[in-house]
Amino acid sequence: MSAKYPKALTDITDILKTLPGVGKRSAERMAFSMLKWQEEKLKTLGDTIKTLKEKITFCPECGNLASEGKLCDVCAAPARDKSLVCVVEESAQIFSIEENGFFKGVYHVLGGKLSPLEGKGIEDLSIDRLKRRVESLGVKELILALSSDVEGQATAVYLAETFRDSGVKITRLAQGLPAGSDISYADSATIAIAFNGRTAL
Amino acid sequence: MSAKYPKALTDITDILKTLPGVGKRSAERMAFSMLKWQEEKLKTLGDTIKTLKEKITFCPECGNLASEGKLCDVCAAPARDKSLVCVVEESAQIFSIEENGFFKGVYHVLGGKLSPLEGKGIEDLSIDRLKRRVESLGVKELILALSSDVEGQATAVYLAETFRDSGVKITRLAQGLPAGSDISYADSATIAIAFNGRTAL
Repeated sequence: MSAKYPKALTDITDILKTLPGVGKRSAERMAFSMLKWQEEKLKTLGDTIKTLKEKITFCPECGNLASEGKLCDVCAAPARDKSLVCVVEESAQIFSIEENGFFKGVYHVLGGKLSPLEGKGIEDLSIDRLKRRVESLGVKELILALSSDVEGQATAVYLAETFRDSGVKITRLAQGLPAGSDISYADSATIAIAFNGRTAL
Repeated sequence: MSAKYPKALTDITDILKTLPGVGKRSAERMAFSMLKWQEEKLKTLGDTIKTLKEKITFCPECGNLASEGKLCDVCAAPARDKSLVCVVEESAQIFSIEENGFFKGVYHVLGGKLSPLEGKGIEDLSIDRLKRRVESLGVKELILALSSDVEGQATAVYLAETFRDSGVKITRLAQGLPAGSDISYADSATIAIAFNGRTAL
């Protein structure tokens, strides 16, 4: 008979390994590391996880993460330009865009992209709410910051169609070589896009 | 003003990134993933973490992980040979050794290795308990399964000295090339050890 982990340890690794990027081994390593933590730290983490969904809500305006029912930081900031709306799939992407702080408009979180294979259709995305915002906020431009995969592009095309007659300018993020990148490491699809979209110097 | 994560999200990533192998980005990715979990799953994980130290205790005999005050699986198994004791640094290593089930003896968890730089001395390791076990169990052989770094070797030398006159055979795990490995990928220290310890065919 070989030794088995105590049940509580198996329980915790079984859940931890469902996290993205965490395999069986890393989950075990995390659990062993937690065993060395102070009781207090375990309690804090446990409580934070249990109340995560009460503490973090979604901004009623744009769908971004917010604290306990309030507007998100971006919608609550009076200086942000409400006529410029950047449409993203998930709120995580807002924080990537906000990192260098050059964008002065507001956001709209779609909640995903059109993906028939995953059963994600038009009614699963917050497109109706986007329509209402476009009408009520006096939006001048919708910047589509969607993935450059097939589903992201299909979603972009659908949104462009939907808002074609609304008088709003629709743009999408430029595609090409990443900043500071070496062409030898770029994939052929990116190089093709960069050639087709070349700009005059 | 750039968008900040809601406080609960910062709280959870701050703790998660103290786990081994988890950086700021992976902690954020885990937290975002937890936001999509069902309330029930968050509650289960939170509770498991909070009660981890109540549920998992240390075997009063060998120091291995055990469930709620009981003997560990190895010490509780009547078939295990109590005269053969494998000394390890941490209980995590027991589970690695147990994986293929060839070892039929029992274990002793030292709780680390001698490391003056980290302030870990003889009194911090369970050496006194090992002495008592050696006397009471009729131990014939102590297999030192310690790290092959400087601290592990110093600990092995100290244990060999301590038990020199006890009539117990002291061995340590063989060092050499890992099973199935290619010499071109082995480091020079391992190759030197493998040469010095070469065996006749």
